[in-house]
Amino acid sequence: MSLPTWLHSVHHDGSEKYVARLHPRLGETVRLRLRVSAAAPIRRVVLRTFPDGEQALAAMRRGPAEPPAQWWEADLLIDAPLTHYRFILDAEDGIWHYSAAGPSAHVPLDHSDFRILADYDPPDWPAQSVFYQIFPDRFANGDPSTDPRPEEYEYRGHRPTTYPWESPPPADQFFPLVFYGGDLPGIESRLDYLNELGVNALYLNPVFTALSNHKYDVADYDHVDPHLGGDAALVSLRRALDARGMRYLLDIVPNHCGYWHTWFQAALADSAAPEAEFFTFRRHPDDYATWLGVWTLPKLDYRSRELRRRVYEGEDAVFRRWLRPPFSADGWRVDVANMLGRQGATQIGPEIGRAIRAAVREARPDAYLMGENFFDASGQLQGDQWHGVMNYDGFTQPLWYWLRGYDLKAHGFSEQLAAPRWPTKALVDAWRSRLAAIPWAVAMQQYNLLGSHDTKRIRTTLGGNDALHRLAVALLLTFPGVPGLYYGDEIGLEDAPGLNSRGCMVWDEARWNRPLRDYHRELIRLRRHSAALQRGGFQLLLGEADTIAYQRDSADDRVLVFAHRGETPRPAGLVAVHDAGVPDGARFVDVLSGREHQVRDGALPLPELAQGALILQQLPD
Amino acid sequence: MSLPTWLHSVHHDGSEKYVARLHPRLGETVRLRLRVSAAAPIRRVVLRTFPDGEQALAAMRRGPAEPPAQWWEADLLIDAPLTHYRFILDAEDGIWHYSAAGPSAHVPLDHSDFRILADYDPPDWPAQSVFYQIFPDRFANGDPSTDPRPEEYEYRGHRPTTYPWESPPPADQFFPLVFYGGDLPGIESRLDYLNELGVNALYLNPVFTALSNHKYDVADYDHVDPHLGGDAALVSLRRALDARGMRYLLDIVPNHCGYWHTWFQAALADSAAPEAEFFTFRRHPDDYATWLGVWTLPKLDYRSRELRRRVYEGEDAVFRRWLRPPFSADGWRVDVANMLGRQGATQIGPEIGRAIRAAVREARPDAYLMGENFFDASGQLQGDQWHGVMNYDGFTQPLWYWLRGYDLKAHGFSEQLAAPRWPTKALVDAWRSRLAAIPWAVAMQQYNLLGSHDTKRIRTTLGGNDALHRLAVALLLTFPGVPGLYYGDEIGLEDAPGLNSRGCMVWDEARWNRPLRDYHRELIRLRRHSAALQRGGFQLLLGEADTIAYQRDSADDRVLVFAHRGETPRPAGLVAVHDAGVPDGARFVDVLSGREHQVRDGALPLPELAQGALILQQLPD
Repeated sequence: MSLPTWLHSVHHDGSEKYVARLHPRLGETVRLRLRVSAAAPIRRVVLRTFPDGEQALAAMRRGPAEPPAQWWEADLLIDAPLTHYRFILDAEDGIWHYSAAGPSAHVPLDHSDFRILADYDPPDWPAQSVFYQIFPDRFANGDPSTDPRPEEYEYRGHRPTTYPWESPPPADQFFPLVFYGGDLPGIESRLDYLNELGVNALYLNPVFTALSNHKYDVADYDHVDPHLGGDAALVSLRRALDARGMRYLLDIVPNHCGYWHTWFQAALADSAAPEAEFFTFRRHPDDYATWLGVWTLPKLDYRSRELRRRVYEGEDAVFRRWLRPPFSADGWRVDVANMLGRQGATQIGPEIGRAIRAAVREARPDAYLMGENFFDASGQLQGDQWHGVMNYDGFTQPLWYWLRGYDLKAHGFSEQLAAPRWPTKALVDAWRSRLAAIPWAVAMQQYNLLGSHDTKRIRTTLGGNDALHRLAVALLLTFPGVPGLYYGDEIGLEDAPGLNSRGCMVWDEARWNRPLRDYHRELIRLRRHSAALQRGGFQLLLGEADTIAYQRDSADDRVLVFAHRGETPRPAGLVAVHDAGVPDGARFVDVLSGREHQVRDGALPLPELAQGALILQQLPD
Repeated sequence: MSLPTWLHSVHHDGSEKYVARLHPRLGETVRLRLRVSAAAPIRRVVLRTFPDGEQALAAMRRGPAEPPAQWWEADLLIDAPLTHYRFILDAEDGIWHYSAAGPSAHVPLDHSDFRILADYDPPDWPAQSVFYQIFPDRFANGDPSTDPRPEEYEYRGHRPTTYPWESPPPADQFFPLVFYGGDLPGIESRLDYLNELGVNALYLNPVFTALSNHKYDVADYDHVDPHLGGDAALVSLRRALDARGMRYLLDIVPNHCGYWHTWFQAALADSAAPEAEFFTFRRHPDDYATWLGVWTLPKLDYRSRELRRRVYEGEDAVFRRWLRPPFSADGWRVDVANMLGRQGATQIGPEIGRAIRAAVREARPDAYLMGENFFDASGQLQGDQWHGVMNYDGFTQPLWYWLRGYDLKAHGFSEQLAAPRWPTKALVDAWRSRLAAIPWAVAMQQYNLLGSHDTKRIRTTLGGNDALHRLAVALLLTFPGVPGLYYGDEIGLEDAPGLNSRGCMVWDEARWNRPLRDYHRELIRLRRHSAALQRGGFQLLLGEADTIAYQRDSADDRVLVFAHRGETPRPAGLVAVHDAGVPDGARFVDVLSGREHQVRDGALPLPELAQGALILQQLPD
């Protein structure tokens, strides 16, 4: 059984051309619109909703014709916190269901329905931002006087050493204590560089006091590590960011703390200490729950009311205080958000996630709360917990697998599971199923990335292939959600020996891949000025063996993105665009070359596609 | 992209051949087994779990060879209330994922993972039961002295009338007050009939005091309607059922009550009455929330603690007291379970569902709690709310659509949406996606049916086609879950003029479709004696244009079911059964004709299939 091809012309998503308001209030009525080909053999379109758990059907009105498309419209009362809906198409060749997962002959399950959240008020600035992630020790050294020195402390039998910038670490070094002296003053000193690149928001890996270079073993949630410049340096950075209209996120580790945190030390010393209940001692003091068996990272147990108070509930709780002046962080990246509040028989993750969201909102209504999650996070993305997550599962990994092949490793499994590149259909299915599992308003807040401190750098992932690297950057900056770059990727850094993706930023411009940096800059500028890319809908146009294409469309802007992974160019040819509602006569400009293309008879004349990406933006009439 | 065909041989579900324990305790380790064709090009199989939100991978062991199959095994620690898992197959032709939704090239979402519930202890008797649903006013009149009479009361300007058994109601009658005098003594008097049919459990439509014939407008949750025989008749029925080893379910209406219930009358009379908060008055007393706008059915508002106390929490709450002697109901069918606790901004359905489950379990640990739900109920079927629901969505409707065409009507939409018969793939996708959305242990408790008091009778649905009717009965009695017949379907009743599916039972044997009744009897006996049908796994064997086939397999029993909907017979021929793990030499008996068939060279010689079903059970070696 294959579905009729006209169903490819059916489109709806939660974006502004399809839903009149992205963030309606409870009690408001919103207009829903469905776009279909004017040539589709449709007799009726029925809106299927589910108020209070009961199916309701409402005939849609035939809306305006906008050749080659025909609109169908209905007004929907938003009277519950979450309204989900889909469409039923009564056509000459059958009755078809259309949900966020696409068209189907059978009745879809609710989990792929389109979803509208009522009274949902996430910050609007992330969608207008391009983030830049910085691992502070490795970006820039602004104050060598604070570089960690061996005489300062001992940790697991080792002592910290600061190595000369970019020098490879000795093979026998203890990885967590290899420092390069990067710090917050260093970041502040490089804001002009970031400004020139075009990014306007930073995501900083942890800066709170800790013994390691990565600082996920936090020893003090209340202070910036002196080696990074201390609290004052963060205040100064905040001011400097303000002067440039930039935002920043801090990285918080609420799932566990470091062994040397005073809470854990108090709990170790005395099983009757108030902090003892923050942890799970199977046998005091030497057998306790940890993050994935790492003894230096004792797991925090959120059954403790006092722990909740200190972490997020109390007026001066960690989650709140850093959002307030003088630090005024614009939000949080939440480490290990996937495991928070989950410990075998105790599964209170959703409760803790919702409480953190409420606390953060109270402290700062426009804060962006973004969680780490490598997996299917849809349960945490229904509007009540994180605004979004690091979208490894819904964007990054499928893209990696499509570009370089499937490659899976996970904790506790050391063997490699690797396979050839994913077929394009697997990429499409993966992307689409993830988008279908969450409200569109949440998809707009997903933090997309190509790599991070926890993965290979994208260029290394792609074996140094410059064309595929550009392709990936083009998708990052045009996919629904919030794009985040990883420091140094823009100049072509690959993983550094002994440091993986956490190598030092290169400041010698002669060693930059300048064309790549310029490519980033141009696409960042495009992204920051395109309504379609910031908030437009998402429709797949093409899924061929080595080529994928999609449309992003907003009320007044339309961008078409073509990505070709093959080494053999895709020959020039006509591409049908009527299913995407693109009218004859529409003119598009290649945003990089300036070359123009015009649609005739429903087809766009597409030039030969070399390995890489082509981005076309529609020109005004 | 199509998946390699050897993937059809990969099978796992939660049944006893694949999971060592259906109901493990928290902390137990269970052995998981995956069956694949011995010829599959598999290098490794990896078990993918998600403990505390983090992916974990574990290599599976190559288990015993059982030609034509090869088993793979792993031991899994059940250390959380819900453990979900899937498999990763590393094969010569790629890496494939296998979840409850089937094989895929891309990484599936968690919602299609296999699921194991810990410390889950549902009653075991429903799986061993075949239910028989009775609409009391229409089954048998045991005591004419209690028949409703016009002088007894007035309701909405009408008076009750009891008509002669089977006589058509006058066209101008007020439907809810058309009575025929059926009652509980009538049911008791017909238990021999039910015994002979082979059913061993009853589901009774509401019996509590109410003005209408259907009694969903309950006026008193504490008494059996005198017209049905009163409390004493239920006690007597209970004793009679006990004598035959039979069970019974009552039908409860917790979503709303009748206008004449004392609670609502008290609330109407005085907005300060304790019962006023049981309802939602938009303006007292004339504007209040109802079930779907029906003014005689005011919606109950479970934000009220006192209402919770009276309905399920208190020692004598409705949900508890009827489960205790002398009534000792074996469980509940919960009316409108899909809407309970849901009212626009107030969405506390899951909380109420969980609390009802806890109350019922406390009152009677082996009670079966089964909800009404016409839609995707997977959110209510994760083990913490209903044991199962009336499985319209996961069994009945897809079957209707496959057999007679798609036909959709819903509240508030009067136009018909109808289309030709579903392609077989739509049936397969619908069934499979529903099974994939819930734990196997819950699928075993789903109440399957072909029709009810709320739908057309199955024979009417199928246009009186006897062959298709038998086909449907065969699937009902062999599909995973608990089969429930609707009274009179077994003798071939169709909808009655003016009464729809609620016509009177025919007791004149001369007018029975005896062969159909015998067909029911034989398949009921098969079902009640087959371990494979009661608790065996479920694997699709065949999905052709007009034919579907599946296997049910338990440790010592195997049943193959073939259903052919076409008017043109499916020609005799060989059917490959190696993918289902059926060995060469296996002998099967047609359970109805006694004819034997033996598997040779991986193929079962299947006789010509006329419209209808063929059920083969494997014979012992």
